[in-house]
Amino acid sequence: MRKKSILLAGLLLYGGIALFAQEEGYTLANALDMVWLFCGAILVFIMQAGFALVETGLTRAKNATNIIMKNLMDFCFGALVYWALGWGLMYGADALGIIGTSEFFKGSMEDPSFYRDWFFQVVFAATASTIVSGAMAERTRFKSYLVYTCFISAFIYPISGHWIWGGGWLSQLGFHDFAGSTVVHSLGGWAALIGAAVLGPRQGKYVKGPDGTIAVKAFPGHNLPFACLGVLLLWFGWYGFNGASTLSAMDSSIARVCVTTTLSASAGTVSALITSWVWFKKPDASMSMNGSLAGLVSITASCFVVTPGASVVIGLIGGILVVCAVEFIDKVLKVDDPVGASSVHLVCGIWGTLAVGIWGNSEGTALGLLHGGGFAQLGIQLVGILSVGAWAALTSLVLFLAIKAIIGLRVMPREELMGLDITEHKTEAYTGFQFFSNM
Amino acid sequence: MRKKSILLAGLLLYGGIALFAQEEGYTLANALDMVWLFCGAILVFIMQAGFALVETGLTRAKNATNIIMKNLMDFCFGALVYWALGWGLMYGADALGIIGTSEFFKGSMEDPSFYRDWFFQVVFAATASTIVSGAMAERTRFKSYLVYTCFISAFIYPISGHWIWGGGWLSQLGFHDFAGSTVVHSLGGWAALIGAAVLGPRQGKYVKGPDGTIAVKAFPGHNLPFACLGVLLLWFGWYGFNGASTLSAMDSSIARVCVTTTLSASAGTVSALITSWVWFKKPDASMSMNGSLAGLVSITASCFVVTPGASVVIGLIGGILVVCAVEFIDKVLKVDDPVGASSVHLVCGIWGTLAVGIWGNSEGTALGLLHGGGFAQLGIQLVGILSVGAWAALTSLVLFLAIKAIIGLRVMPREELMGLDITEHKTEAYTGFQFFSNM
Amino acid sequence: MRKKSILLAGLLLYGGIALFAQEEGYTLANALDMVWLFCGAILVFIMQAGFALVETGLTRAKNATNIIMKNLMDFCFGALVYWALGWGLMYGADALGIIGTSEFFKGSMEDPSFYRDWFFQVVFAATASTIVSGAMAERTRFKSYLVYTCFISAFIYPISGHWIWGGGWLSQLGFHDFAGSTVVHSLGGWAALIGAAVLGPRQGKYVKGPDGTIAVKAFPGHNLPFACLGVLLLWFGWYGFNGASTLSAMDSSIARVCVTTTLSASAGTVSALITSWVWFKKPDASMSMNGSLAGLVSITASCFVVTPGASVVIGLIGGILVVCAVEFIDKVLKVDDPVGASSVHLVCGIWGTLAVGIWGNSEGTALGLLHGGGFAQLGIQLVGILSVGAWAALTSLVLFLAIKAIIGLRVMPREELMGLDITEHKTEAYTGFQFFSNM
Repeated sequence: MRKKSILLAGLLLYGGIALFAQEEGYTLANALDMVWLFCGAILVFIMQAGFALVETGLTRAKNATNIIMKNLMDFCFGALVYWALGWGLMYGADALGIIGTSEFFKGSMEDPSFYRDWFFQVVFAATASTIVSGAMAERTRFKSYLVYTCFISAFIYPISGHWIWGGGWLSQLGFHDFAGSTVVHSLGGWAALIGAAVLGPRQGKYVKGPDGTIAVKAFPGHNLPFACLGVLLLWFGWYGFNGASTLSAMDSSIARVCVTTTLSASAGTVSALITSWVWFKKPDASMSMNGSLAGLVSITASCFVVTPGASVVIGLIGGILVVCAVEFIDKVLKVDDPVGASSVHLVCGIWGTLAVGIWGNSEGTALGLLHGGGFAQLGIQLVGILSVGAWAALTSLVLFLAIKAIIGLRVMPREELMGLDITEHKTEAYTGFQFFSNM
Repeated sequence: MRKKSILLAGLLLYGGIALFAQEEGYTLANALDMVWLFCGAILVFIMQAGFALVETGLTRAKNATNIIMKNLMDFCFGALVYWALGWGLMYGADALGIIGTSEFFKGSMEDPSFYRDWFFQVVFAATASTIVSGAMAERTRFKSYLVYTCFISAFIYPISGHWIWGGGWLSQLGFHDFAGSTVVHSLGGWAALIGAAVLGPRQGKYVKGPDGTIAVKAFPGHNLPFACLGVLLLWFGWYGFNGASTLSAMDSSIARVCVTTTLSASAGTVSALITSWVWFKKPDASMSMNGSLAGLVSITASCFVVTPGASVVIGLIGGILVVCAVEFIDKVLKVDDPVGASSVHLVCGIWGTLAVGIWGNSEGTALGLLHGGGFAQLGIQLVGILSVGAWAALTSLVLFLAIKAIIGLRVMPREELMGLDITEHKTEAYTGFQFFSNM
Repeated sequence: MRKKSILLAGLLLYGGIALFAQEEGYTLANALDMVWLFCGAILVFIMQAGFALVETGLTRAKNATNIIMKNLMDFCFGALVYWALGWGLMYGADALGIIGTSEFFKGSMEDPSFYRDWFFQVVFAATASTIVSGAMAERTRFKSYLVYTCFISAFIYPISGHWIWGGGWLSQLGFHDFAGSTVVHSLGGWAALIGAAVLGPRQGKYVKGPDGTIAVKAFPGHNLPFACLGVLLLWFGWYGFNGASTLSAMDSSIARVCVTTTLSASAGTVSALITSWVWFKKPDASMSMNGSLAGLVSITASCFVVTPGASVVIGLIGGILVVCAVEFIDKVLKVDDPVGASSVHLVCGIWGTLAVGIWGNSEGTALGLLHGGGFAQLGIQLVGILSVGAWAALTSLVLFLAIKAIIGLRVMPREELMGLDITEHKTEAYTGFQFFSNM
């Protein structure tokens, strides 16, 4: 008897507290979701530091200030234009499945779910734009980079984003990209590849010998501990990127997402290490670090719908792919991507998106080939990859060519030789340190 | 019928679980608040790393060890004295609206809300004290800095903090400072300015020429990537600083706080970039980074009560202000603040506090001038700024003069020339690296 | 009347939402616990970056790449083998109180509590293995380190972990180690000490003079700001390490854990600073930073069961101990541990485990000597320390001797002189910077 009345009293008390606490229907569940998306958003935010350090560490000291400035600025300009335009194009009222048409410059005092969602989405938009910075490092005009970054955050990323996450045609088709292997990474990767190709290689990168053969020179990065810290910060942030893409804390799969993300990243690192060790006869540091990122990009689309075992395989293949892609883009395509951004984000982004069609295994619905889903999902994934790829490649190409024609995309040869820190920003990154003069 | 009984069963089950889980009335809502304040507190904690890196990066390599030691120690000494004395002066039983008088050396096993609140507050106290370290960099005796830091954390910060956040006279007056533009930043900024002024400039900073004019020399920082990582870590931590200042997760405005913080910081960075570009003909890196911090400090007081649009304007003005303030303090006042701490924290702290009186727009209550609140709130904000400013400036002045008289505030000229790493700590920060001898 | 019906409506609504939201019994409390363990796990994850930076910063530039590679790889290999084998040995079905026997290669889609727990535990396993890397720095073959790291994560750590956290014999005995002073730190510390001893000192570390006395040379670290950032990242992560070891957010003691952790770390830093200042006549940077870690390791076992006052004393003693231990191991034992890992993790790990038996004061149960618990708990703590110590020391010794015999543990003298970056990884960490040639 006593127990029962305590139970009832507890219930009433609990309900009373809950009622009291609910300001206009704001429940504990709402509050928990907000905390969850907050954690996710700040983790994705700190990936900006990760990108800045990876890109700085893997390039030369004379361009370090320029690189950090580009990374800082693409977030700042990106956030402003994503508030003004990007959000509305991505999540505004849908028109024909291809574009959002409302919610520009949004900002009444009352709209907690808008604020929550915008905060979580703006950091993804910034990730897409910052991918490009590394591929175009050491030779791009600062001003031109700022123009580019505004366009990708305001238009390019939001529009294809609308197709997939904004309720557009690809989402209606059943395209699955849980946290953005395609929405964010392959899109950014395409822009990176196109940007690097339009810019042309750094001076001295491809040198034609007297016998007509072309020697490919490597420019080693100037600070590998920075690069490693960057990779670990990216990995750290990726738990928010993938984990919080459930968009609600009330999802028991969050834990599985964390596990598949961990295992794929670990497997990617290990396989890139071994691939580089076998191929180049050395356990290569920058390849291994790109292997971590490869594992992370590869699992981003499918982290919610695969088993731990599958995530290991997906990561292992991602790690091998990234080493091959770096060599292919560098030696065969002869596109100079100083940090391997297109290999990591484009190639592994595509791979990760396809992996959904192979190992995808959502509750109750067989998506992947290996789970009885047949080729249907794989086909849909391919449609998504190709259409976003065509969109990203085309718009980037037009954009970079337009910038090239109007304000110029590349610094002068003499400026490139001196380094962009001195010529663009009138400073050195490491005042007081002595460097070898030919670096 | 079945549905209804399931509903009831669910309710009973839920209440039962809730009851069971509640150890002595510790509810899910309590637990969520704890998780929320935990997230906030650790984020503000990591701002210590941000400050250390910004200050190290923007000064010379020969003083890097000294700077990181000061940053590490102001947290450690600060936490101990804030537990012993500071907390009680700030949040103990109020006496006359000006001081707390209980809860010193607190520590029974049972008092979860004390523990939670102390953990969240100690990191704010540490922020206030660490602001000063950058302004006094490269010439302060280590021992003297330790004495200073104990006093600000034990007395100076907690007492004016009591006036505003501890239920004292300014809070009774209606002064609004949500997350501490005045409580933390302008207080620390005053101490920074006074400290730098009492110390005097670094050797060679202001050199009188044969014609009587004074040349102002710039000492460029030795590691801009450190500074950038520091800024991003500070920004990252600021989401906890501002966001968790709701003190409860059960507040739908958390999301808006995150958005206004993001937009103001972005706008501050962009406007400082543009200001420096127009004024100095270069997109200056350290000005831009100070612009980010300016945007963050400027929105700290008002982040809870302004719209996104207002936050953009507040940040834009903050970014312009910080560039002007750095020039003014350096060239006109001739106070040598190596990292611009007083410009960022004092000038933008004042600006941010005033902004509440202009754009403040709390639910149901018009605070700001532009929302029909008239000049009333602006007047209250001014009273708070002036009284905290008078308190901070006066106590710091007395403290620094006393330290100067008793144990000395500044190292010997020869020590300053050699660098504080060797003379104070008998080590180099970068053993093995070659430096130019005149740095 | 109206109020009552609103209350009832609220209750029903709330229950309804809760029911709806519960997918197969996944409650708000479950979701909150998941968010809590997520926060804890990612914080412990980022400690990998902390270890990498501390170890890199406190050693020489010519080995920086090697150190970051070891740190990256011990997580990646460790996560894979901990999924395959370690988890099952630690948390699988108990056999005789000494070993787990199930749950290897686990991975169905449905098992949220497994995924949650594995994610939280894998980062602890990685911490144990990474401790060793610093003690064996600057002379270990990369390949051999990889073999070692697989064994500790797959076998050594999980088996003794099973005794304490997996329901094995030490937990049945009443051994208390809340967050792992013994499970993680003294275990890793033993492996570190044994590894460093088996390897032998770095070249030039102990030089016999013509008069037969042995001169002990110090090799200063090459980047103290890295080390400081590493310490702050470790401290930051430790809030997850200790705080989330409640394993549930529904525990009002979380807040106290954060406070005792903060105070002990602060006290350890301050006492190591003062000890080094008195002993060596300088406020030593690397000793102070090791003091922070000493305070953290010392409080890890007891953070849940001591008052703030006790935590200050535990940290103060930890900070003194670490300075004495570094000197003793370096000068008396003549074991060359370049970063002081065995002093921090082994000595303070033991100290922290004992502290439970002195100040432990769990709700309702007196554990510690000073709280009326007598010597019983202290005896149990000693049994745990000795048995885990014997296990760790013996298995490490066998493992390192086996590696030495089969594939070799140490690089060639010439390789050590040139640095492991060039000889093991064919790269420099800081390309372009000039170094003094004898470093």
